[in-house]
Amino acid sequence: MKLWGGRFTKGTDKGVEEFTSSISFDCRMYKEDIAGSIAHARMLAKCGIIPGSDAEQIVAGLEGILADIEAGNFSFEVSLEDIHMNIEKRLIDRIGPIGGRLHTARSRNDQVALDTHMYLRREIAAIAALVTELQAAIVETAEKHGDVIMPGYTHLQRAQPILFSHHIMTYFSMLARDFGRLQGVWERTDVMPLGAGALAGTTFPIDPHYVAEQLNFGALYENSIDAVSDRDYILEFLSFASILMMHLSRLSEEIILWSSAEFRFIELDDAHCTGSSIMPQKKNPDVSELVRGKTGRVFGHLMAMLTVAKGLPLAYNKDLQEDKEGLFDTIDTIKFSLSVYASMLKAMKVNGERTLDSLQRDFSNATDMADYLVKKGLPFRQAHEVVGRSVRYCIEERKWLAELSLEEFRQFSPLFEADILQAIQIETCVQNRNSHGGTSPVQVARQVTNAKALLTKQQGVLDTYRKVGL
Amino acid sequence: MKLWGGRFTKGTDKGVEEFTSSISFDCRMYKEDIAGSIAHARMLAKCGIIPGSDAEQIVAGLEGILADIEAGNFSFEVSLEDIHMNIEKRLIDRIGPIGGRLHTARSRNDQVALDTHMYLRREIAAIAALVTELQAAIVETAEKHGDVIMPGYTHLQRAQPILFSHHIMTYFSMLARDFGRLQGVWERTDVMPLGAGALAGTTFPIDPHYVAEQLNFGALYENSIDAVSDRDYILEFLSFASILMMHLSRLSEEIILWSSAEFRFIELDDAHCTGSSIMPQKKNPDVSELVRGKTGRVFGHLMAMLTVAKGLPLAYNKDLQEDKEGLFDTIDTIKFSLSVYASMLKAMKVNGERTLDSLQRDFSNATDMADYLVKKGLPFRQAHEVVGRSVRYCIEERKWLAELSLEEFRQFSPLFEADILQAIQIETCVQNRNSHGGTSPVQVARQVTNAKALLTKQQGVLDTYRKVGL
Amino acid sequence: MKLWGGRFTKGTDKGVEEFTSSISFDCRMYKEDIAGSIAHARMLAKCGIIPGSDAEQIVAGLEGILADIEAGNFSFEVSLEDIHMNIEKRLIDRIGPIGGRLHTARSRNDQVALDTHMYLRREIAAIAALVTELQAAIVETAEKHGDVIMPGYTHLQRAQPILFSHHIMTYFSMLARDFGRLQGVWERTDVMPLGAGALAGTTFPIDPHYVAEQLNFGALYENSIDAVSDRDYILEFLSFASILMMHLSRLSEEIILWSSAEFRFIELDDAHCTGSSIMPQKKNPDVSELVRGKTGRVFGHLMAMLTVAKGLPLAYNKDLQEDKEGLFDTIDTIKFSLSVYASMLKAMKVNGERTLDSLQRDFSNATDMADYLVKKGLPFRQAHEVVGRSVRYCIEERKWLAELSLEEFRQFSPLFEADILQAIQIETCVQNRNSHGGTSPVQVARQVTNAKALLTKQQGVLDTYRKVGL
Amino acid sequence: MKLWGGRFTKGTDKGVEEFTSSISFDCRMYKEDIAGSIAHARMLAKCGIIPGSDAEQIVAGLEGILADIEAGNFSFEVSLEDIHMNIEKRLIDRIGPIGGRLHTARSRNDQVALDTHMYLRREIAAIAALVTELQAAIVETAEKHGDVIMPGYTHLQRAQPILFSHHIMTYFSMLARDFGRLQGVWERTDVMPLGAGALAGTTFPIDPHYVAEQLNFGALYENSIDAVSDRDYILEFLSFASILMMHLSRLSEEIILWSSAEFRFIELDDAHCTGSSIMPQKKNPDVSELVRGKTGRVFGHLMAMLTVAKGLPLAYNKDLQEDKEGLFDTIDTIKFSLSVYASMLKAMKVNGERTLDSLQRDFSNATDMADYLVKKGLPFRQAHEVVGRSVRYCIEERKWLAELSLEEFRQFSPLFEADILQAIQIETCVQNRNSHGGTSPVQVARQVTNAKALLTKQQGVLDTYRKVGL
Repeated sequence: MKLWGGRFTKGTDKGVEEFTSSISFDCRMYKEDIAGSIAHARMLAKCGIIPGSDAEQIVAGLEGILADIEAGNFSFEVSLEDIHMNIEKRLIDRIGPIGGRLHTARSRNDQVALDTHMYLRREIAAIAALVTELQAAIVETAEKHGDVIMPGYTHLQRAQPILFSHHIMTYFSMLARDFGRLQGVWERTDVMPLGAGALAGTTFPIDPHYVAEQLNFGALYENSIDAVSDRDYILEFLSFASILMMHLSRLSEEIILWSSAEFRFIELDDAHCTGSSIMPQKKNPDVSELVRGKTGRVFGHLMAMLTVAKGLPLAYNKDLQEDKEGLFDTIDTIKFSLSVYASMLKAMKVNGERTLDSLQRDFSNATDMADYLVKKGLPFRQAHEVVGRSVRYCIEERKWLAELSLEEFRQFSPLFEADILQAIQIETCVQNRNSHGGTSPVQVARQVTNAKALLTKQQGVLDTYRKVGL
Repeated sequence: MKLWGGRFTKGTDKGVEEFTSSISFDCRMYKEDIAGSIAHARMLAKCGIIPGSDAEQIVAGLEGILADIEAGNFSFEVSLEDIHMNIEKRLIDRIGPIGGRLHTARSRNDQVALDTHMYLRREIAAIAALVTELQAAIVETAEKHGDVIMPGYTHLQRAQPILFSHHIMTYFSMLARDFGRLQGVWERTDVMPLGAGALAGTTFPIDPHYVAEQLNFGALYENSIDAVSDRDYILEFLSFASILMMHLSRLSEEIILWSSAEFRFIELDDAHCTGSSIMPQKKNPDVSELVRGKTGRVFGHLMAMLTVAKGLPLAYNKDLQEDKEGLFDTIDTIKFSLSVYASMLKAMKVNGERTLDSLQRDFSNATDMADYLVKKGLPFRQAHEVVGRSVRYCIEERKWLAELSLEEFRQFSPLFEADILQAIQIETCVQNRNSHGGTSPVQVARQVTNAKALLTKQQGVLDTYRKVGL
Repeated sequence: MKLWGGRFTKGTDKGVEEFTSSISFDCRMYKEDIAGSIAHARMLAKCGIIPGSDAEQIVAGLEGILADIEAGNFSFEVSLEDIHMNIEKRLIDRIGPIGGRLHTARSRNDQVALDTHMYLRREIAAIAALVTELQAAIVETAEKHGDVIMPGYTHLQRAQPILFSHHIMTYFSMLARDFGRLQGVWERTDVMPLGAGALAGTTFPIDPHYVAEQLNFGALYENSIDAVSDRDYILEFLSFASILMMHLSRLSEEIILWSSAEFRFIELDDAHCTGSSIMPQKKNPDVSELVRGKTGRVFGHLMAMLTVAKGLPLAYNKDLQEDKEGLFDTIDTIKFSLSVYASMLKAMKVNGERTLDSLQRDFSNATDMADYLVKKGLPFRQAHEVVGRSVRYCIEERKWLAELSLEEFRQFSPLFEADILQAIQIETCVQNRNSHGGTSPVQVARQVTNAKALLTKQQGVLDTYRKVGL
Repeated sequence: MKLWGGRFTKGTDKGVEEFTSSISFDCRMYKEDIAGSIAHARMLAKCGIIPGSDAEQIVAGLEGILADIEAGNFSFEVSLEDIHMNIEKRLIDRIGPIGGRLHTARSRNDQVALDTHMYLRREIAAIAALVTELQAAIVETAEKHGDVIMPGYTHLQRAQPILFSHHIMTYFSMLARDFGRLQGVWERTDVMPLGAGALAGTTFPIDPHYVAEQLNFGALYENSIDAVSDRDYILEFLSFASILMMHLSRLSEEIILWSSAEFRFIELDDAHCTGSSIMPQKKNPDVSELVRGKTGRVFGHLMAMLTVAKGLPLAYNKDLQEDKEGLFDTIDTIKFSLSVYASMLKAMKVNGERTLDSLQRDFSNATDMADYLVKKGLPFRQAHEVVGRSVRYCIEERKWLAELSLEEFRQFSPLFEADILQAIQIETCVQNRNSHGGTSPVQVARQVTNAKALLTKQQGVLDTYRKVGL
């Protein structure tokens, strides 16, 4: 029996019931639903809206239901539509008509908003911790392979020699921004909607601040219509998640490239690879491929939710029920992606000999040769032209720059002197890019130091989040 | 134990195993996997690649497994990754090492492609039938309310009077195109990939035509690399589904508008509505809202899969495993949406008095007034101007066009004569739009007749699809 | 002649030149490009990398070019690819080979990043001002129509009576969050990338802090690879813009609904509407329709950029050139949408008689009737049931709740007394929803007061942004 | 002066005018607009709706305007909103009030639909030709490098040796499907909407079949409401284009990989590459990167249009004006991408020595070793295990399979005999994959032959399309 059926002359079609029901996925929020209801009941009593003894019975009933669910002794019913009705119905079965007082001064519209805010807030805390752990793993990786020199790429063409640690620390910077964005999401999620009722507030003398206090909320919604129809915090979370996954997709692409027979810059641990049903030699970087693939899934969830919300008149519309599955799947996806990457980076071997060796057979030091000429007084644009011609000569002669004789160098410019060979040595190239943020060991060490300081700061934020509990 | 582990020195990380495993969703394709394996085994025997007696044992084993699954006596193991390995492992457990012959001359890459092609083909047949049923329901609805006149809208402003049947038949046309697009998807899904092996074909003298024949495929892949890396048919299906859902979202928007207190053009059956936990009077058109909302979900799946496939080098990459969940969810979503709409339209009441009445108080007949003047010789652009001024006059005088006196009409043009009032009567306006595809009863009747002929044609297509069987 | 052609034996294909050229759109950033180059030149001189007199000539040359462009005396050449090369080439033409010193210690990779950061920063400042103006217009509108009562909706079904000012203030809350998100974007855009070179920093002893100071940047990139490959700030801006447009699409939907013959809650000014080429009576809310439509465009740009960035290995890849057109179009779109809405809301008439009148003929007061019973001691769930049955009775008897006699009320519950009629009067319903954020005049006035305080705060932020100047 | 202003008391706001105007982009369709108007005028005369002499004047006037536009003597006015009003206004200026008769029995709603159908039809013909040319270029490339052996990849790990021609022909298959899909788009674009009027047809005795005949349309819309609100053909085109770009993004990714220092499988012509402003040695595969990047843009346009259409009530809404810019940009993008790829593939060098050489140092022949054992009678699953262990042994001993002695082979299985070395030679591996669609020279030759036959068929389709003319 529906709890809203008084006005109806006929029951709901079975198929429709299943289609419109959300219990199969919103049951995930049972903890939040019960905690919210307990806080609501206590507030109702405190404000004299229901008798204190009724509130006590309701709270005890809800605690019993929580225990049942956690013990696996609760069967969710599709015909009761959602987690709210499932729990309320069970409460009434358990403690009698008094249970019907719980829904005083609230609606499912503000109730589901409350549950989702609380659920997401908890997950943000967990995800912020995982982002931080992955950042820490990156710092550890950078330090472990501190002296490895590898080719730096633009357009996937060899560009200039760089430190591996410099390269991997790029991902630290990306994740630091992700953390910053997640703080913005937290701020706009940590807002309490209960008391908005269906849309217009309630005629009962409620105290939503007391509810907020019990549930550790930092703020209340200013406007009740906004409280029940706002899904910005979900969209903002999905935007955060999309950018995060984009970052991980870039790292994944690199891991895949570096694991190929052509690059062989790294070797992943067997624990993070799988084989082939037909080709016995295969060791595939599946995890990175899947993370790269799952990027699409998260983008899709963002696009889905934007589409859902587009053009909806105020206030609540059933379309908004579509906010949850994509959100939950996104949470699961990024939590796993973050944690597997932390362990994968730690277990991965970096083949420093191979990366250095490969630089002996390319033109990655051409910019240094141009810089050499500029330091001797040539305008950069002319120096670039001189080196460009030298490279063309080398290609025709099948030589590398370091293999040219001083005479050959001087063919292209009289500014070349004996110290040119030292200037274009790979190690020199790396050492000399000592500008702020550059690839020199000094600069990368500075970066790592700052990164550690940032991690300490982030830990402080995590502590605050954790205190919110539930 | 992995079936591909020989080359590895270490097992897969548990979390990774779960993350990379697909059994939780690809178990849906157990029937296809088994049917494909049976056909493969028979072909291997026919070609002398394995002994006929081995094939018989394999087939019997697979049939036993099928029975087990359908009886609920099969537990799928995450550690066995996917439906293919789950079934192969069980086969070997059941009939011994001979079971290991089944994977001769194939790879999971072509095997999963085969399963997905078969699965989608079957679902296309089911969906094509549902599209046709909804079209039939629309025709039925159009005939049932054949004489209802309602306002036609552009920009959600009243434009011209139309027949309700004309309006609803628009959706028939949309669905007819959807059916056409679905035929295109079928054509490009009904192609057999088995025999492609991992990517390059196989060294065994297989006969893929015999496999295709057993499984009723219309064509074979020309190129083995394409066979294992093609996901076009999924993308094309998702494109079809997105356009279909866009159509249903438009219909949903209209149902929602028409159910509002402001329009009251229709009343939905109680069986297709739900109520409110707080507002006792509410009867909400949830189904339409959800279908409109779920449009976002399907768009998201399309975008997800496009993102997944973008920039992938040949041939198979693990990213492609992401093709299934969005596909399956899309199938479920559109199947329900189509079927619920068929029954909802049939049960819905149309309030013809209300729709006609509302036309008495608007300017929907203004175009007819302009056409009247054109027929009297005025260039259309000037006639438009004359009527525009008349409307402005009416607004100022708080009158409707039909309430003007002949003198008033003549203030705006001397061409007006006594027959103007007849010309701008609502019923006349409808009757007179008798051009091909127009709103006159004659034209709509023609449309309905053609629609029925098309439905018969579509039934013929459905019969062909059904013959393909599993 | 290309400025990078030394290594090449052959010129670029004309079609390719056009395809890969970005000058047709990046010419928008000429101001930023020149300001950045001037700052760079001064820094090079300050650090002794180029002679001070050369820097002076370069600065003078660049200022001359700026004047030429603003005077319309500069023709951009496709063969020079982009804004950077167009200006550098002209500089060399103007002041000779010394102009070639300007590109010392930088690359186009960090140069374009600098330009884009500066350009977006300036536009963020402009957009933040427009968001604030629209918020102010909403507050003004709320105050102007402070006593208008209208139906509140959920599921587009009448739910409860609300104040129009309450309803419209919902959009204030949405925009306040948009402003908050935009501050996050500013923070991550206001970071200086110059000095990163191609990807690895530079071998010259540059002082990027001095460049940042000249250009008013709040921070520097920590990592040079990140500096040239980061497009997060663009993605975050597009996410902000998508959510903003989603808000405006909701407002647009409502404006369109309210302008319809069925609702007639508002009338838009003629200045914001257009007519029909064929139907003389039409006055269409085109602006709202277009804003709703352009929401799709902005979502598309977000999806495009996410797709572009997905899976790109470090550092710069040419794909990233695709970051600009969608960004520029998004900026134009949201700037116009924000400003047109500010003027449209101010000019719009609200039909308060109509909105109030419509509430006399619905069941929007049903919740109040249930609340009445609860206050008399009935558990809410039972009160809901009682009122549900009353509504069904009314529908059958074709009455409204306020038309029932006390005897009729008592048929449903003996708790009803004479004061029930007062309790379910529309004005009472509004007055009594006096909970925090509710629809009572007191609560809405509180909201408006807080809103004004927030606007003052936002003005402070805008001042800071404006100080940054170009 | 607006042509629809009679009902209005006030002009349109300037900013709104610009915002709602479409002339900046729909001027592209001037040819179609004029051709459509000429056909319409002739039909009006033929049906006696306007005098024949008026029609002649109108046609002459329109031809004069066409000449003016093509000669550059026509300035489009924003205040006239769109291409239709710009031309109609000019016509009236030119031939007087008679020009006002042209708009008899039509609306801009059906007029813009007609223009867009015609425009897209013409572009489909052009794109179909470009797809065919790229397919031909692929066949040419396959034949040119017919004997090149390269590693085949799955998971970007070396899998099995394949022919380069086999690999590149995969893209032929993809494009063949694209061609098929484009035929579907053509079919649903080649439908004539004129006569639908604003939405409901017209009261004039028009003959739309005659218009269709003049403009070479294959079919008419059945339903006038559908005719003006259908945008399926645009969505279907954007879906086609998205899948096409996805294909080109995959090819681009491979071209980029193959051009890297690590792969060096191909060398692009200088004409298709660009250099770096700072690094003199760089030769970047920009075209491929841009095509890969522009994939995002096309996906974005699809998503934009789906979002625009979602939830729109019938019939025309201004939102639909957003259909054009994305469509036009998509057309431009795919046309260039297709044509540049045709020339790039032809000019590209394939380094067959390098690709073959790289296969000498990997385990790509492991499957062949397993197949060898299966042919000796071992079940495949056990053979896989044996070879897996052999590979692990090789890795530990730093050997390749072909370097093992017969004794070493026999350590893993007694089934190995002297012929094993022959069986795992690269050339043998390729030759032996002779199954349908496999990589053997025989199979690839068959593919090429079939491909040529298909190209001939496609030429026939192109001929039909061309006959339709403008």
